[in-house]
Order: sequence, then structure tokens, then C-alpha cells
Amino acid sequence: MVRGFLLDLDGTVYDAGRPIAGAPQAVERLRQAGFAIRFVTNTTSRDRAALVGKLQGMGVEAGLNDIFAPPYAAACFLREKQASALLLLTESAQREFSGVPTDVARPNYVVVGDMGEQWSFAALNAGFRALMAGAGLIALGLGRYWRTADGELSLDSGPFVAALQFASGVEPVVLGKPARPFFQMAWQDVGLEPSQLAMVGDDIDGDVGGAQRAGLRGILVRTGKFREQDMEGEVRPDMLLDSLADLPDVLKGAGSRE
Amino acid sequence: MVRGFLLDLDGTVYDAGRPIAGAPQAVERLRQAGFAIRFVTNTTSRDRAALVGKLQGMGVEAGLNDIFAPPYAAACFLREKQASALLLLTESAQREFSGVPTDVARPNYVVVGDMGEQWSFAALNAGFRALMAGAGLIALGLGRYWRTADGELSLDSGPFVAALQFASGVEPVVLGKPARPFFQMAWQDVGLEPSQLAMVGDDIDGDVGGAQRAGLRGILVRTGKFREQDMEGEVRPDMLLDSLADLPDVLKGAGSRE
Repeated sequence: MVRGFLLDLDGTVYDAGRPIAGAPQAVERLRQAGFAIRFVTNTTSRDRAALVGKLQGMGVEAGLNDIFAPPYAAACFLREKQASALLLLTESAQREFSGVPTDVARPNYVVVGDMGEQWSFAALNAGFRALMAGAGLIALGLGRYWRTADGELSLDSGPFVAALQFASGVEPVVLGKPARPFFQMAWQDVGLEPSQLAMVGDDIDGDVGGAQRAGLRGILVRTGKFREQDMEGEVRPDMLLDSLADLPDVLKGAGSRE
Repeated sequence: MVRGFLLDLDGTVYDAGRPIAGAPQAVERLRQAGFAIRFVTNTTSRDRAALVGKLQGMGVEAGLNDIFAPPYAAACFLREKQASALLLLTESAQREFSGVPTDVARPNYVVVGDMGEQWSFAALNAGFRALMAGAGLIALGLGRYWRTADGELSLDSGPFVAALQFASGVEPVVLGKPARPFFQMAWQDVGLEPSQLAMVGDDIDGDVGGAQRAGLRGILVRTGKFREQDMEGEVRPDMLLDSLADLPDVLKGAGSRE
């Protein structure tokens, strides 16, 4: 019995800066029906407060605790280990790391996210030197690239993780979808068992495959980056919907709790 | 019968900006004995003219044609194919590419060398976009890092090649030691058969292993980065010398041409 949903953001709740039609209302109906909701995104360039602002601007009710994202996951991981870190992140994402010592000569970890235009040789080299001095490597995702608003491709954080791994020989711990440790932290954050949760997203592997491998159900939506070929691969979603907007009615039809 | 020598530079002819004791004299004696000499280096941040200046400043006679290095090799490769290129290289290294169109919207190749502090997100992203638009990838070496004069480690070009390969999925052609195509271009440049040439260097794999796999002999010197453990690996040098300075006497003792 599913008691909660992990909802992807980009391509599932919103797309190109606008809400998917009917998605804000669907989130509200799911909540009213008693389902636990967590927005689980791979965004590594913003902190949760920035995502809350974005969601509220689109008419989606959200607080800090409704969002589970790689920078927050990494900060929890580090705080639990009482570990220090060198943060290769945007200023916004760095705000998640209060309580984590980040200004030390020999950090325990190097944390890598999307820095876009802020990447520099000095930043990457500092990360490399820390790894050679014994630090661990935390990757907030292994995305290869993304498409900017003007339609151009832009390097994501994955290539920079690959550069650091090639140079240092250190294997990264990945705290982002579709990595299992990230989904595990997500369901622990919700406080439900994986079998009680379903992930809803537009990425057949990142959302659906990753969730299924971690013991959750995976629901694919035909919005965002979805393409019909996604249904021809090895990953089989537990459910295929035209949009997140359809989820409440489908659950109602299935005699669920609503 | 060996009729020519390919001599590595850094760690073999000079080290930390100074000539290895006796090396300049050894080069001269080899030349006087009738051996063909080529300085074969993996340096990707300087053009041949800069290397000539450095060698002459140390008392080693050298002209442009005595040097074989990755930027020059890549320029020859591109000119033969009449191909255009985006050059991710220092200004000095870019000077090798006269005659190669480098200011085109859709370059045929992306050429990657060591740019050090000059690396930027914009440069790497431009290379990535060219690769996604169909360009080939030429790596002027896959070095992981090097040790600067102040003893600190610094990222070499390999990690940036790894980043571009991870992002684009394009496999690089490597034009630097120990890659076979580079050694092949080197012996063709000398105008001798591989069996008539020996590579002399301090890198057990980059110099000795690479040369041997390309059909040349490989001579290891106990200078530069040499460590005794190098003799315990799979690569077995054809000869081990304390220094390049010893080569002329060894050849004389062996009843060679001198």
C-alpha cells in the first residue's frame, strides 16, 4: 500500500519555469488525501529555500522540509559524520551546509555540484589537491549536461566529477538520483518504508529505475524529458501517466485512500 | 642496429629547470657519432620555439626540427586532413597551428592540452558543444597531474579530456606519449624505421613502454621521476642507465659506431 509520493520537480511539477498544467492542484489533492509528499530533485545549484520560493511562486505550497535535494542530503551526511568539507558548489547550495566546517586546511570530503560559469581551474585544482591529501569525494549527481533556456547545451556536474576521479583515482559517493544511497536517505527522511513509497518523475532511469532499484515503486510521466522510446528500454515503470495532474484521479479510480 | 635516438626532455635532458649533469655533452657526442636525434616531449603548453629557447639556454644545441611534441604533431595531423579545429591550448602552443582554420563555427576537431590557470568553464563548454555538434577529440596527452616548482600538485590535461569524454561520449585520439600514433608520427618525422630507433626517458611506461609497443627500443634513465619500483612492473627496458650522460660511453663500449 503506497502511503507517500516522492515527486520530481523539473519536468514533473514544472517545466521551463512554468507549472505543468494541473500539477499544483494534484499536489494539493494528494496531500488532502493523506499521502506524505516530498519533492525529490537533483538540482545541485540551489538550496531548499530557493526551491521553496520557486514552488510558491507557481502556486505550489511547500516548506523547507518538503524538499529533498542533493546539497541537503550531503549536509546531513557530513553532519552525521562530524566531517569537514571543501564545497565546490554555488553560493546558494553552500547555504545548506551550516554546521559543517568548510574552512579547513585538510577537509574530510570534497563535495561537487553544478557550478556553471563559476567553475575555475583554481577551484577544481583545490578539490584535486584535497583528494590527493586523503579526502573523500561526494558527487551531488553525475548529470552529463543540461539544456539552457536558450536551447544551448551546458556542462553539468558529472564531467567535473569525472575529471577529479581521473586525476586522483578516488571513487565518488553519489548523493543524487539515481544512486541508491540518495533514495535511501530520502525514504528515511519521509519516515516510511520504501515499499510504502512511489517516485513520480519524467526520467525513466534517474527517477523510475533508481527508485525501483532502491525498493520503491516508480511512476513515469509523459511530460518534461519523456520520449516514447523510454518505454522500450530495460526499465519498466510500475505506472505510466500523461501527467502528474492525473495521479489523484487514477488513485481514486483504483479505490485508494482518497 | 640503432641509428637514432628519441630523447625525452623533462627528467632526461633537464630537471627542474637545470640540465642533467653531462646531458648536453652527451647529446653533442651522439650527434658527432652520426646518430639522428629528436627531442620527443609530452609538453603541451609550449610551442617548439619556446622549447628551443629553453634548450639553448642550457647549452643544448637545438633547432625547431629537432623537436617533436604533441602540439606540432596535432598541427601536422590537422593540416594533412585539411581540418579545422577549436584549440583548448595556451597561446604558446597555439602558435604551432599556422594554416589550420581555428575560427570556424563548426570545427572538425577539438584539441585539448594543458591550459593550467587559463582553463575556464566557457572554454571547456565550448569544446563540449563542438563535440556534441560532431567534432572529433584530439588529446595532447592523458597526464593526470604534475608537480609545480613549489612542490604542489597541479591538474594536467588528462582530467579535462576525461571531463569532455564523459560529457560527450566522444573517444579521444591521443597524440602524446605513450600513444602509438604519436610514436608512429615521431619515427616518420625522423625518417627511420622504428627498429632503427630507441627512446630514452625517465618514464617507465610513457617513454619505455610506449616506445616498445610501437616497435622501438626503450631505454630507461635513473633521473627525473625514476624510482627503483619502476623495474618491478611489467615493462622491461631494453637498457637501464644512471643518466643520459652515460649513453655515449655505453655505445662505445658495445662497439657501436662511435
